[in-house]
Amino acid sequence: MSSLAEELRAIVGDRHVLQSEAEMAPYLVDWMGKYHGQAQLVVSPGTTAEVSDTVRACARHGAIVVPQGGNTSLSGGATPGSAGAVVLSTRRLRTLRRVDPVGNTITAEAGCILAEVQQAAQSAGRYFPLSLGAEGSCTIGGNVATSAGGVAVLRYGNMRDLTLGVEVVLPDGRLFDGLRDLRKDSTGYSLRDLFVGSEGTLGIITAATLRLFPTPRASVTAMASVEGLDQAVSLLNQINDHCGDRLSAFEYISGACLSVIAKHVPSAPLPLPAASDAVLIELTDSHADAPLAAMLEEQLVTASEAGLISDAVVAQNAAQAGAFWKVREAISEALVREGGSAKHDVAVPVSSLPEFVADADAAVQRVMPGARPVIFGHLGDGNLHYNLLRPVDAGNAFPGWDRVTSGVHAVVSQYRGSISAEHGIGQLRVGEMPAFKGEIELELMQRIKGLLDPQGLFNPGKLLPL
Amino acid sequence: MSSLAEELRAIVGDRHVLQSEAEMAPYLVDWMGKYHGQAQLVVSPGTTAEVSDTVRACARHGAIVVPQGGNTSLSGGATPGSAGAVVLSTRRLRTLRRVDPVGNTITAEAGCILAEVQQAAQSAGRYFPLSLGAEGSCTIGGNVATSAGGVAVLRYGNMRDLTLGVEVVLPDGRLFDGLRDLRKDSTGYSLRDLFVGSEGTLGIITAATLRLFPTPRASVTAMASVEGLDQAVSLLNQINDHCGDRLSAFEYISGACLSVIAKHVPSAPLPLPAASDAVLIELTDSHADAPLAAMLEEQLVTASEAGLISDAVVAQNAAQAGAFWKVREAISEALVREGGSAKHDVAVPVSSLPEFVADADAAVQRVMPGARPVIFGHLGDGNLHYNLLRPVDAGNAFPGWDRVTSGVHAVVSQYRGSISAEHGIGQLRVGEMPAFKGEIELELMQRIKGLLDPQGLFNPGKLLPL
Repeated sequence: MSSLAEELRAIVGDRHVLQSEAEMAPYLVDWMGKYHGQAQLVVSPGTTAEVSDTVRACARHGAIVVPQGGNTSLSGGATPGSAGAVVLSTRRLRTLRRVDPVGNTITAEAGCILAEVQQAAQSAGRYFPLSLGAEGSCTIGGNVATSAGGVAVLRYGNMRDLTLGVEVVLPDGRLFDGLRDLRKDSTGYSLRDLFVGSEGTLGIITAATLRLFPTPRASVTAMASVEGLDQAVSLLNQINDHCGDRLSAFEYISGACLSVIAKHVPSAPLPLPAASDAVLIELTDSHADAPLAAMLEEQLVTASEAGLISDAVVAQNAAQAGAFWKVREAISEALVREGGSAKHDVAVPVSSLPEFVADADAAVQRVMPGARPVIFGHLGDGNLHYNLLRPVDAGNAFPGWDRVTSGVHAVVSQYRGSISAEHGIGQLRVGEMPAFKGEIELELMQRIKGLLDPQGLFNPGKLLPL
Repeated sequence: MSSLAEELRAIVGDRHVLQSEAEMAPYLVDWMGKYHGQAQLVVSPGTTAEVSDTVRACARHGAIVVPQGGNTSLSGGATPGSAGAVVLSTRRLRTLRRVDPVGNTITAEAGCILAEVQQAAQSAGRYFPLSLGAEGSCTIGGNVATSAGGVAVLRYGNMRDLTLGVEVVLPDGRLFDGLRDLRKDSTGYSLRDLFVGSEGTLGIITAATLRLFPTPRASVTAMASVEGLDQAVSLLNQINDHCGDRLSAFEYISGACLSVIAKHVPSAPLPLPAASDAVLIELTDSHADAPLAAMLEEQLVTASEAGLISDAVVAQNAAQAGAFWKVREAISEALVREGGSAKHDVAVPVSSLPEFVADADAAVQRVMPGARPVIFGHLGDGNLHYNLLRPVDAGNAFPGWDRVTSGVHAVVSQYRGSISAEHGIGQLRVGEMPAFKGEIELELMQRIKGLLDPQGLFNPGKLLPL
């Protein structure tokens, strides 16, 4: 029997099978540098047929397969474990197969970069709304496999909502061709939705057909100071009720978070004082003449009269709008510079957000007195990045965060929330799945996994506990 | 061992177990009178716990369970076969558990009537958009189980898109509590989406949490004459591009269809001559002052100048808009009166609609020369009701339509379309599933069915071939 490496070379060509430590290194660590794994080789098939043949060869050899796209996971979902896996990189699956501006769809292979897909939509006079920090390097396959979120979910939905069809190489190497570009199809179980969000544990997504939208031609951006989350939720509610689908972003940044930005990222000056929490609001419209600024100003006046906001600035031009967004985008850098933070990507029903945060804050102080919440996120979707900084006097050798995370996630469960709103489970949260999902849901997931991947070779240890 | 009927009486109470022929009769025939079945009894549990106990008892006795909601299926999905099943009616599961206008969700039990849910949303100052002909009697459970569609899918999506969480009694009687009301949750396989559209074959949906939307406060409706589908698709494209999410309906009615309405339903007078095909366009907006009429008139002028439309009327008030919709709603009655029609609920990519119809028309003429297409439907979603009337000279004893349907569906498959865009598979299309889905997709569905319902007791013969 020939070696797996020899077989794979015959399938994809010599230079697309990497085996040296130096060549494999970038594939064996996640971009945060948090997870390190091992692999016997890294293989990069160039077509769906080559993916099929690669997977068949791996199955014959009983080799573990770890699919990897842009390697931007925040949960270690694409980094192999220690068992000498085959890392299957989708980077060469780069064909944009079809853009249909009349049907409002785009079909892209898994390795296409998100920003390329946005660009291709724009070139066709359409808009692909998924937008997130890693968009310059993350891939469509990874976006689908994690049901990625980002800043435009409020209006356009997450990657599950944006995905019309998928093409998947199953763990036995067969192709599930589900690349339908239909808006309506009531013909049985949605296999598509089984693969969306499956994090490479049920096969390899090789291509997806995605929804496109009319181009937003008008937009207005504002920042407003709010007393707290209660007021922020009321403001969201008011604007949503009157402006409807025009509301494309409603981001929350706590005062504590603003202070950290002011301290560490002077290139992102705050338009409003850090003494209050802030919300970043954006309205967009496909109609070029839509009077969005007047509409938003009217809403802000109403909110001010109702005592929901204490101050507000409406961007007067695109540069100013960009400066407001720069504040939002500076958060990650600011938290890194401050050092020693714990991250929680949680979601609860929007109406429960204020109570949830109060309860979570209390739970944190019980476990780690002095820990400093620096909360921000996609308030419009009920998705907060409930992050914490170590106590001011804790120094660099502060204790681990595990007990704090357990406390926060216990509160999430009380509110029937999510412990991973948009980052996936990966390695990071896999240990928490039994407590979070409960026996029946986890059992059904395990049995579906067993049905599609009876040998357990696909991305083991991710998403579902071994 | 006690009889199943005795056990069920003990669970739900005597009067909620029906066994006489007369009492059971309404549950054993679909509303079209097309499918007739048999049952050993009809049971109506009043709570989710009673559903669980009922299902456990049926499982112990090896009894077939056929879930039934409002019994409005167009595919025979809720009518039992000839094997003496237990019909499990959800009609007593009528509690509206929660309306959350801030979180924009409503949680309704399976037996709630769609119109009640619409009304409850309205009372809370919100909008539930699912709307279809049977809304006065169909139930939420059935809507979820078939991923129902209707006239507002273009803007708001179908029932799958509108469903955030489900509560399901599994075939073994256990409860899957997936009633999360989260907008974002990336924590593994979407079991929710497995049950949505499963037509009672994987368990019984007992409640669902659904999305609500801002109330539309402004609307405008117009009808326009178009030369044909090419022009209709171009018009859709133009309006969608400029009016974006405001476009809430774009319905197509062929000239042949208009003629049949004019002949049989004088109470629905045509605003435009039947010599041309027509489209019914509606824009809505949550902003009360939105200048929709001006916006739509501008679009129609542009379309006229581009030669896309030959005539148009914009409704001047709600009564006139209602009159336009009455034409759309008169189609079913008109076709029944004309007599002898075949129905096809198909979807293809919007951009393929004109070519698809040309090819389907040609296929029909080959099989049944003189058959008359009377096409209408949700053009904005690519979903046409591609219906046919028998040849004028065919009399009442015309030959069956099976070969015609095969011909039409073969063309649907060529265009990678759907043979059931919004009516489900039920009994009507189950025989076509192998050809339509292909081997791998059908096998995966069958294996999922076997995983959840190993005894094959839940709604056998529906959706999946036995």
